[in-house]
Order: sequence, then C-alpha cells, then structure tokens
Amino acid sequence: MKLLSFKIAGEETYGAVVGSGVVDLKRATGNKYPDLKAVLAAGALPEMEKAIAGKTADYGLGEIEYLPVIPNPDKIFCIGINYGTHMMETSKVVPEAPIVFARFANSQVGHLQPFLAPPESTRVDWEGEIAVIIGKTGRRISEDRAWEYIAGYAPYNDGSMREHQKKDGQWTPGKNFVGSGPFGPWMATRGEIADNAKLNLVTRLNGMEVQRATSHDMIYSIPKLIAYCSMFSQLEPGDVIVTGTPGGVGSKRNPPLFMKDGDTIEVEIEEIGVLRNPVKAEVA
Amino acid sequence: MKLLSFKIAGEETYGAVVGSGVVDLKRATGNKYPDLKAVLAAGALPEMEKAIAGKTADYGLGEIEYLPVIPNPDKIFCIGINYGTHMMETSKVVPEAPIVFARFANSQVGHLQPFLAPPESTRVDWEGEIAVIIGKTGRRISEDRAWEYIAGYAPYNDGSMREHQKKDGQWTPGKNFVGSGPFGPWMATRGEIADNAKLNLVTRLNGMEVQRATSHDMIYSIPKLIAYCSMFSQLEPGDVIVTGTPGGVGSKRNPPLFMKDGDTIEVEIEEIGVLRNPVKAEVA
Repeated sequence: MKLLSFKIAGEETYGAVVGSGVVDLKRATGNKYPDLKAVLAAGALPEMEKAIAGKTADYGLGEIEYLPVIPNPDKIFCIGINYGTHMMETSKVVPEAPIVFARFANSQVGHLQPFLAPPESTRVDWEGEIAVIIGKTGRRISEDRAWEYIAGYAPYNDGSMREHQKKDGQWTPGKNFVGSGPFGPWMATRGEIADNAKLNLVTRLNGMEVQRATSHDMIYSIPKLIAYCSMFSQLEPGDVIVTGTPGGVGSKRNPPLFMKDGDTIEVEIEEIGVLRNPVKAEVA
Repeated sequence: MKLLSFKIAGEETYGAVVGSGVVDLKRATGNKYPDLKAVLAAGALPEMEKAIAGKTADYGLGEIEYLPVIPNPDKIFCIGINYGTHMMETSKVVPEAPIVFARFANSQVGHLQPFLAPPESTRVDWEGEIAVIIGKTGRRISEDRAWEYIAGYAPYNDGSMREHQKKDGQWTPGKNFVGSGPFGPWMATRGEIADNAKLNLVTRLNGMEVQRATSHDMIYSIPKLIAYCSMFSQLEPGDVIVTGTPGGVGSKRNPPLFMKDGDTIEVEIEEIGVLRNPVKAEVA
C-alpha cells in the first residue's frame, strides 16, 4: 500500500493511493483511528488492506491537500554524514557511530506545500533522503530483527539553513526552521518494498538532477540505524528515521547553489514516488 | 501556583501543591483538560487558581507518583555551554549564538523516579538546570516580550551519557537515553517568580554540593533564549527550554566522578523546590 495523510474540505484524514486517487481510510474504517500514527500503533495495516479491497478512489490526487506522511511523529531522528559522497564533499571522516540529530514535527510540510525560505537565511539548502517509518515499539533492537520494525519508506527533504546549522556545532537550529522538512507524498509499506531492496534516491532542483544515490550506498545501513537509535531511545510507531543525504548538496557545489523563491525542489525514491515542493520566501 | 503532573491509583492527572498535599485539578475542573499541556494551551491558569481557592489537599505528597512536570511536550530545547564556569571547564569559547540540541519527551522521568544508568555507559553524568515552560504560541518573539510567553519554571536534570555525547559531535544520543531526563517536582508559575528574579540553582550528589549558580550567571539570558529558539521554530504551550548547566559536571572533575546504582542526585532551584532521583542500574 501507499499510505498518506491529507486534508480534504478542511478536515485532516489519511488514506491509500488507489489508481490516480485516494481512498479515505479514516472514513472507510468508521473513524476508528484518528490518524496514521494511530493506525500503525494499533498494528492495523491488514485492516487497511481489507478496507481498500475492491474500492475505487474517493478523491482524485489533485483534489487533496497533502500533509506530511506522519504529521505528528513523537520523534524524528535525522542521520548526518551517511554516504561516502557527502562525507567527502564535507571533508569529514567515517563517523565511529551514526551521527544523530533531531528534527521537530512542526518543521515538516507535505508534498506540494511551500518549502519556506526564511528571511534569516541566505543559504537555504536541500538534502534528499530516504525516510524510514517505524511500525512498532522497540528498544535495543538487534540488526537482524530490525526490518520487522519498519512500517514503510518515504522521500524526505531535510532542508537546511546552512549558516544556522554551522554556527554552533549543534545542527538543531539550522535543521528546524518551520516549513523546511518536506515529507511525502506517501509511504510505501514494507509489503511493497523487499527488505534491503536497492532504493534509488534522486534530488532535482528546477528539473536539474543534483543528487543521486541508492540505499546500498549508506555508510550505516537501515538495520544499523534502527539498532543504534533504539540503543538509547525507545522507538514508537510513527517515529521517523531520516537516513542521511548523499553528495550534491548546494552549499558544497562550486560555485555554491542555494534555493530561492520560485524554485521547485524534488526528492524522488524511484520505487516509491516524487516529493515536490515550491520554494517560497517567507514573510516574517 | 506550583503545578505538577502525577499518577494516583494508576491514573495520570495533574494538580497544584496546597500545604503538604496536592489538589487534583483534573478532577476539580471536571476533566475539562486532559493534561497540564492542555491547561496551558487553553490559557486556563486563572481557572486553576479559582479551582484551588479554599480547597484542602486531595492527596498527601507522599501518596502520589510524580510524572515529569510536562510529560508530553512537543519540543524540548536544551541549551549547551550557557554558563562561564561550564564553558571554562569544557575548554569552549563564548558561543556566537545559543547552542541548541533536542531531547525527546520519552527520555524524561518524574521526581523520585529512578534515573536510569544504562549498561551502555560508564560515564553517567548530571547536569542541573533551570527549565522554562512555555505558556503560549509564538514565533520570532522579541526579547522584551519574551517573559509573557513563560508559564513557569522547574528544576531539570539534563542527564548525559558522556561517551555517547562526545563520539559524533552531535549530542543527541548521549542526551536521550530513556530515564535520563528528570523534570520536577513541579513548576512554579510565572505569578510566583518575578521576571528576571535571581534563581539559585544547586546540584547535589549524595548530599554533596557539586554545582551552584544563579540564573543571572547565564551567558544567554532567558529572554535571549526564547527569542533565539522562536526565531527558527514556533513555540507552543508546554514546550520546554532547558537553559544550560553551570560548572561542576562529573566528567570535568579531577578525578572524574560519575553516577552509579544507589546514588541520589538532586537538582534544586531554591525558590521553587528540590528534584530528587535515585540512580538505578538499568537491566537491558
């Protein structure tokens, strides 16, 4: 299934992609679960499969307002320097453990929503990434059991205000501007993507390819990231691990290339879908 | 008022300290607000004042199980290197902006609950701090309006597993172990603490004073921290800013001193109360 959160007629709901439209699963299951996080927490993906069987779409994809795939994760773990190409362009070395920083949920936006370029930054950068959505509670998960904890995968843009990321050593401010974390358009559930499948990640600025990598290029694999994050924290359904960006970010290009009002930024996982956001100058 | 979250007979609720006991404010206000965060979001502190007027305690302080003051904040902003004494012991320089990292809500524990020393760390350290609890929504808050956004203040122990904090440059793993973030016993509301009052912060390990400072020793003042965090993020009721620790952490003592099973760690803000936690070795 391809699952997504969206708004229709002002109401927040969630559903599944069927053909070129969406089945409203909140309605189809009688408001039993308030949101997609609650569906995951209840282990209700099989119920969702049943609910879409034989159904036609309630709405066309063009009618809905996309929300972040999980609008309200308890935790968003972002991974730094997890591809050799990005490690080289940033003059870093192989980290002795995954580099983890946090993003807050209120920095996220959905597919087609504006990526906000705030007045406080002139170095507005993209980071195309593969997001892993956690499906069940776990602590100290072993690498060999890690796949079982995955609900699905989605494109993510870990948008970065570089001057704010760099100034203090901790990356939190530069990675948490409101409107800087596109997440969507939907997640492909684990049933659609074989464990350890080679996922192709591509980022495009105004149609020009600026990043390309596969999930097999990661320094720390998805199971290693799940094992590591669950070593210190307890993972919960709906938590998101954003697995790091490959080489090709704007700040390391020569000359540097940053995003500005009117640009379009896309992050595609070829097996899943395209996350597209117009860049919009934010008025403070 | 002194407001707290607690459990009684297995149920989560919240209340106010009255004499040597607690008035259950969730019950007193007819379950109108599910938790303290919702009380703040509704701007309902005056309603709470009315609800305790003339009331005697429902429970003794010894009868309740303390929860973190806000068990479910959307965001916990932690500030690094915000006292000259800690800056010197860590050989850092005055940061050009506040150093901000994030703690997840599920790392928090209440007063008297075990501070967990995990098997993955031999460098389990304390950080006594003053937590500021946000009372209303705001973005790009000016320093001179910042006090209006404060709901109250509470002791916080930003417990740190030093080998995990240091190894990757980003402090998230070392600052997010389950059971490492004591927050309590209660918050004193802004009505009890004059804006810019000099708050005295003391940390004690097994009764021995290991840290002492005042809120006036901060490098970045509370209004500056609110202005800075709200520059990139939108603050919401119940958000917490943990304002940094002074000199005297265990890892910088000579010889180093770390916490172990059986220890007792206390963080006191003299004008507010004492946050006390037994240290307990966690069995993985």
